[in-house]
Amino acid sequence: MNTSLINPFLNSILNVLSTMAKLEATPGKMTLKKSDVALGSVTGLIGMVGNKAKGTFAISFSDKVVLEITKRMLNEESTVIDDTVIDLVGELTNMVSGGAKRILSETGYKFNMAIPSVISGKDHYIIHKSKDPVVIVPFTTEAGDFFIEICFENLM
Amino acid sequence: MNTSLINPFLNSILNVLSTMAKLEATPGKMTLKKSDVALGSVTGLIGMVGNKAKGTFAISFSDKVVLEITKRMLNEESTVIDDTVIDLVGELTNMVSGGAKRILSETGYKFNMAIPSVISGKDHYIIHKSKDPVVIVPFTTEAGDFFIEICFENLM
Repeated sequence: MNTSLINPFLNSILNVLSTMAKLEATPGKMTLKKSDVALGSVTGLIGMVGNKAKGTFAISFSDKVVLEITKRMLNEESTVIDDTVIDLVGELTNMVSGGAKRILSETGYKFNMAIPSVISGKDHYIIHKSKDPVVIVPFTTEAGDFFIEICFENLM
Repeated sequence: MNTSLINPFLNSILNVLSTMAKLEATPGKMTLKKSDVALGSVTGLIGMVGNKAKGTFAISFSDKVVLEITKRMLNEESTVIDDTVIDLVGELTNMVSGGAKRILSETGYKFNMAIPSVISGKDHYIIHKSKDPVVIVPFTTEAGDFFIEICFENLM
């Protein structure tokens, strides 16, 4: 996988959380997914198809961090993963992938997005069935941690 | 949503299961998803982006039916949702959406697929964040039941 495809997502996440939730996030070390990792309690997932590559982007939150993001973005206090939170995770998935799409388009990668899905349920697993490696990037914030998973395959 | 986009998926599923698993499936009544439905224990999910529409296709199995399909397709006996089963669900997702893509292309809808994801975990929920309705179709087989969820949005 072309790792230059990853940075636009990191920049987009930092930008979205900083401007929309007044939350500074710090990306950790990028690693390759080696085994099935149980995700947070709620995950946004979106497929991307482009002129040179196709891929999937996932962003997975623990209860703690997503409830704080909801509070900061909507000024609404949710105590559990309810419809408000689910909607927000779908919207965050759209905003982050849309932001990455704009940055990527400047480097010649044109992508179109499918429809985002939000997966909830304790200890759910998501396995991306890609020939290419899946990249994981953890993020820390003062409200808790989250992480993203990205995989891309070059098109012929 | 244009419901003529749904039938190609039904035909593709019946074809894939009949030829690959020697399993006859019968589609039930198509309904609109009204509330969050807990899915089976393993779900294949793939994003689709096309010239006229974008969408997401999900196929969700109970343990019982997917273990029987694995046995019939691979001649391997799994007793739990292991890597073999996960791989097979990813492959089924590819085959079914690929078959539907071929049928749809004859009607002027050209789609490209993202990378399939497989979600596992008891009682996981998937919410498709679409402006348009999500269609659910249940299927019955002698090995158990499964169902699909499809949503499409027309592009401007």
